[in-house]
Amino acid sequence: MAFYNSRAHLVPEMLSGLLSTAEIDRLGTSDGTAVLVRRGHDPQAGVAVISGGGSGHEPAHAGFLGDGMLAAAVPGSLFASPPVSAVLEAIRAVTGPAGCVLIIKNYTGDRLNFGLAAERAREEGLDVRTVLVADDVSLPEIEQPRGLAGTVLVHKVAGHLAAAGASVEQVAEAAQRIADGLRTIGLALTPATLPGEDTEPTRGAELGLGIHNEPGAREVDVDGAAGAVQQVLDALDADEFVRTSEHGVVAVLNDLGGCSPQEGLVLTHELLDRLGRDAVTRLLGPARLMTSLDMHGFSVTLAPASEELVAALDAPTTAPGWVRPSRPCAPQRVPGVGVATGEVAAVVAEASPRTQDGRLEDAVAAACRTLESAQRELDELDRAAGDADAGTTFAAGAQAVRGLVESGDLGFDDPAAAMRRIARTLETAMGGSSGVLLAILATAAGRSLETDGRADWSGALAEGIAAVQHHGGAAEGDRTMLDALIPAQRALAEGDGVVVPAAVAQAAAAGAGATATLTARAGRAAYVPDSATQGSPDAGAAAVAKLVRALADSLS
Amino acid sequence: MAFYNSRAHLVPEMLSGLLSTAEIDRLGTSDGTAVLVRRGHDPQAGVAVISGGGSGHEPAHAGFLGDGMLAAAVPGSLFASPPVSAVLEAIRAVTGPAGCVLIIKNYTGDRLNFGLAAERAREEGLDVRTVLVADDVSLPEIEQPRGLAGTVLVHKVAGHLAAAGASVEQVAEAAQRIADGLRTIGLALTPATLPGEDTEPTRGAELGLGIHNEPGAREVDVDGAAGAVQQVLDALDADEFVRTSEHGVVAVLNDLGGCSPQEGLVLTHELLDRLGRDAVTRLLGPARLMTSLDMHGFSVTLAPASEELVAALDAPTTAPGWVRPSRPCAPQRVPGVGVATGEVAAVVAEASPRTQDGRLEDAVAAACRTLESAQRELDELDRAAGDADAGTTFAAGAQAVRGLVESGDLGFDDPAAAMRRIARTLETAMGGSSGVLLAILATAAGRSLETDGRADWSGALAEGIAAVQHHGGAAEGDRTMLDALIPAQRALAEGDGVVVPAAVAQAAAAGAGATATLTARAGRAAYVPDSATQGSPDAGAAAVAKLVRALADSLS
Repeated sequence: MAFYNSRAHLVPEMLSGLLSTAEIDRLGTSDGTAVLVRRGHDPQAGVAVISGGGSGHEPAHAGFLGDGMLAAAVPGSLFASPPVSAVLEAIRAVTGPAGCVLIIKNYTGDRLNFGLAAERAREEGLDVRTVLVADDVSLPEIEQPRGLAGTVLVHKVAGHLAAAGASVEQVAEAAQRIADGLRTIGLALTPATLPGEDTEPTRGAELGLGIHNEPGAREVDVDGAAGAVQQVLDALDADEFVRTSEHGVVAVLNDLGGCSPQEGLVLTHELLDRLGRDAVTRLLGPARLMTSLDMHGFSVTLAPASEELVAALDAPTTAPGWVRPSRPCAPQRVPGVGVATGEVAAVVAEASPRTQDGRLEDAVAAACRTLESAQRELDELDRAAGDADAGTTFAAGAQAVRGLVESGDLGFDDPAAAMRRIARTLETAMGGSSGVLLAILATAAGRSLETDGRADWSGALAEGIAAVQHHGGAAEGDRTMLDALIPAQRALAEGDGVVVPAAVAQAAAAGAGATATLTARAGRAAYVPDSATQGSPDAGAAAVAKLVRALADSLS
Repeated sequence: MAFYNSRAHLVPEMLSGLLSTAEIDRLGTSDGTAVLVRRGHDPQAGVAVISGGGSGHEPAHAGFLGDGMLAAAVPGSLFASPPVSAVLEAIRAVTGPAGCVLIIKNYTGDRLNFGLAAERAREEGLDVRTVLVADDVSLPEIEQPRGLAGTVLVHKVAGHLAAAGASVEQVAEAAQRIADGLRTIGLALTPATLPGEDTEPTRGAELGLGIHNEPGAREVDVDGAAGAVQQVLDALDADEFVRTSEHGVVAVLNDLGGCSPQEGLVLTHELLDRLGRDAVTRLLGPARLMTSLDMHGFSVTLAPASEELVAALDAPTTAPGWVRPSRPCAPQRVPGVGVATGEVAAVVAEASPRTQDGRLEDAVAAACRTLESAQRELDELDRAAGDADAGTTFAAGAQAVRGLVESGDLGFDDPAAAMRRIARTLETAMGGSSGVLLAILATAAGRSLETDGRADWSGALAEGIAAVQHHGGAAEGDRTMLDALIPAQRALAEGDGVVVPAAVAQAAAAGAGATATLTARAGRAAYVPDSATQGSPDAGAAAVAKLVRALADSLS
C-alpha cells in the first residue's frame, strides 16, 4: 500500500504536483509527450542545459530545472526513456544560437533516444553537445557503467557554467570532465515497490544497485548504519580515493527514496566519521536527489574536489530539488554564557537565613512531616486515577524540604530566597508533574516576593497559582491541586491583610473535598472514566489541604 | 532493519550528523545535556526564538536553527521532553535584553519543563514569553490538543519578526495568534518503527495521528492517494475553512517520514485538486518538517493566509530544514517554439526527387527486398544472443523504405534530403535499438551530405558511423553491425574516389563473418555467455553485409 492512485496515473499526477508548485512550464508538444521547461528561460541568453530519462527518480530530473541548473527536462514513463520526439522538442524549445548540452545517464535507451534527437537537432542547425554520465563503479568489469546520483553534480556544473556565460564547448567539456571523475555505489535493504505491487520483497540487502530495481551487484549482510556505510566505502575504494585527492573530495549522500530523516543523519555521521571531516570539502545531502521510488537505501558518490566543481556547487540556483552543500567540520562546542544580562539577581541555591523566632520554619517542618506521614493515604487516593504514587511523590518533596529546614539551610528571613530554594529542591527531589508544578509555583511566588519587597504571601501565592495555570493548562474545577490552592489563596487574601489561619485551612479542605464530585479535565486522570474517580477527592488537592491545615495549626 | 546503530546511540549520532554539516554549535552544558545554538547568534541583537522537544521529529527542531528562525533548540531523548536544566541553559545562552520567546508543543512534559525553565529564567531577570502550539484537531473534544507540524509555521513567524526587530511582546503575540489559527490532521498507513524494533506493524491505516506512535483517533480504509487526502481534508473540515478564509489559506503538506518523493508529488496533486489551487495562497511542502521517524504517512496543516503569515513564510532563512513555500497555480502549458534559430534547414520529411536514371532508387529497393526476404535467417542468427527479432526489425525498416521508393516519395537527386527521409522512416517504422542506431547513422550521413554539397558517400558514411559509435558506445570488434559497416566504409573510401562495389561488399561480408569469433561487448548480447554466440555471426553485421551486397550487385 502506498499513496499512489495507480501506476498508469503516477507520472501525470507527479507532473501535476510539480507543475502546480514550481516555476516550471509544460511544453505543448506535437504528440502530447511531457517536456518541461524552466519558466522564463531565454534561448537567446546562452547555453541551455537539458537532461531527462525515465521517471521514478524524483526530484531528478525535473526538480533540477531552475536558474543555474537545467533549462529543460524530458521525463519518460516510469523507469523508461523518453521518446526521441520529446527530446527533440525540448532541444528546439530552449536552444538558441549558443547551443545546448544534453546530460545523459548511460543507459542504452537514453543514449540512443537522446543521441538521435541530438543528431536531428544538429541537422536543424543547432549546436548540440552530449555529456554521458557513467558513475556506477559497482561492476568494474562492465564496459558501460550506469549513470547514477553523480549525475546531479554534472547538472550543477553544466548549469552553473552556462549561467556564467561559458561557450557550449566549455560547458560540455567541463561537464564531461566532472562526470568522468565520479564514482557512485548504492546499498539498499529493500528494493523499490512499484505502484500497485504490494508483494513482500524477496531480495535481501544488496550492494551495487541500479535505480530501476534491477538486482544489485551482490547480496550483503547489513547490521546497522555503521556496517552499511563501511561496505559502500570499501566498494568505492574510498580510502585510496581520498588519499589521492589532494584538494579533498566532494561527497554526495543520496537517499534512494525510503530512508527516514533520522537514518539520513545517522548515515551522515557514519560517512563523515569514516571519510574524515577534513577530507570532505563539500557534502551534498543527506537528501533525495536521484531516487528509485521508495527504495530503502542510499548511495554515496565521490568526486575530486576540484576548484571548478566546488565553485559550481556553491553557486546559487532556484531549482527546487537542489540542496545546499555543506562544509563538514567537527561538531563545535561553545561554552554556556550563564546569565546573559547584567541586571539579574544572583542565581539562587544558597542557604537562606532563618527568622528570629523560627515560627515559620517550624511550621514548614511540621507541614512536611504531615505530608510524609500521609504518604500511604494519598497513594491510595491516587490509585483510582493513576499509578498510586501521588503520596510517594509529595512525601519525597516534603522530606527534602524538611531536611533543609532542620539543617538550618532554609529560613524565611528572606522569603523570596526561601521560595527559590524550595523551588530548586522540589524540582530535583520531588519528581513527577506535581514536582514541576510546585516548583513553578514556588519560583513564581518567590519572584513576586522579590519584586514586592515585603512578605505579601497572598499576592505571592496568587502569582504562583497563575503560573501553574499558565504552564499546566488546568483551571479551577478541573479536579487538580488548584481546587485546594485557589480557595486557600482567596481566604488568605480576604480580610484586608488580617489572616485567619483556620479559615484558610478550612477553605483548602472544602475545595479538596469538593473534587470528589468533579470530572477530571487535566492531568493523567483526564484519560480515565469518571466512574473510577467519583466519590474520592483528587490526591493533589488533598495533599495541599493537609499541607495548609498543618501550616495553619502550627501558626495559629 | 534500518540504518540506525542502536536506540541508545540514535540521538547522539543524529546530533553528530547535524552538527558536522550545519552552522550550529552545541553548548557545553553543566550536565552534558544537548543544547544547540545557531552559530553567530548575538544575544544583544534582538529577541531570541527557542524551541525544542523530544527527538525523533527531525528536521524539527534543530533543523530550523538559522537566521530568521530559531536561535536555540533543545532536543530531548527519543520522543521525550528535554530536562528543565537544558531549556534554562538554552535561554541563558541566547537571550539578551530584548528577551526571548519559547515555542512549546502542547504536551504535558514540554509544557512543564519549558514552563519551569521560563519561570527560573524570569527569576534571573530575563524577559521570557511562551507560545503554545496545539494544532491537532483530530480529537475535538479534548481540552489539550497536541502540537503537530503547524509548529513549524509558528517558528517561522516568530523567527521572522524577531529578525525584523519586533519586541518580545510583538513576537509572542503574533506567534500565538498564528498558532491559534492552525489546524492539523495526519494519516498514516503504518506507524513508526523504533530503532531496534523490527516487528511487523499490527495496526492498520489511521487518521488523526500524534507524532509519538500513539494510536490515531480512528482506523480508516485507504485505497490510494486520492482517498487518503480526501479523508484528511474532511476531518479538517477544509471546505468550510477555505470558504471562510477570505485571503485564502496556507497549507502544509508534511511527510511524517516514510513517504517516497513520488508519493509526495502525487499527494500534492490530490491536495491542490481538492482545495483548489486558487485557494492555496502558499503551500509548504511536500517536505519532511515534523516527522515521526519513518512513519509512512503525511499530515496537512491549514491556516488562514494572513498578510503577516505570508510575509513571514516568504522571508529568507538559513535554517537547513526549511523549504521555500510555493504559490500554487494551475500547470502552465507553453507552445513549442519549433526550431529556435533562424539559420536552420527546413525540417524534413517531405518527398525528395528521384535521380534521372533511377539507378540508385532501384538499388535501394532491391536491397530492401533482400533484407525482407532474409527475415527468418536473421531472426535465427539473433536467437543465440537475444530475442530472435533482428530479422523482423530489419525487415520492418526495409519494407518501409522500399514503400517510399516505390511510391516515388524517396529519390536521391538530393542525397542529403533522401538520407533525412530514410532516417525519419527508420526512426518511426523500424523500432528497437538498431532502428534508432540506423536513424542516427542516416541523420549524421545526411547532415554530412548537406554540408558537403556533393555526394561524398564515403565521407557521409564515415560521419554516420562516428555518430553511431558516439551515441551507441560500441567500437569495432565489439560484435555489432559496426563490424560490417566500418570495413565497408574503408573499402568505399579506398582508391581515391574510384569505387569498386564488389570490393565494398566483400569487405562488409568479411567483417560480418569475422564476428562469429568475437566476444560481444555492446548491446544485449554482452550479457549472455560467449559460448552461446560463438560460431555464428552477429545478426546486425550480417544484415548490413546483405544490404551492402545487394546494393553492390544492383549498382555494378
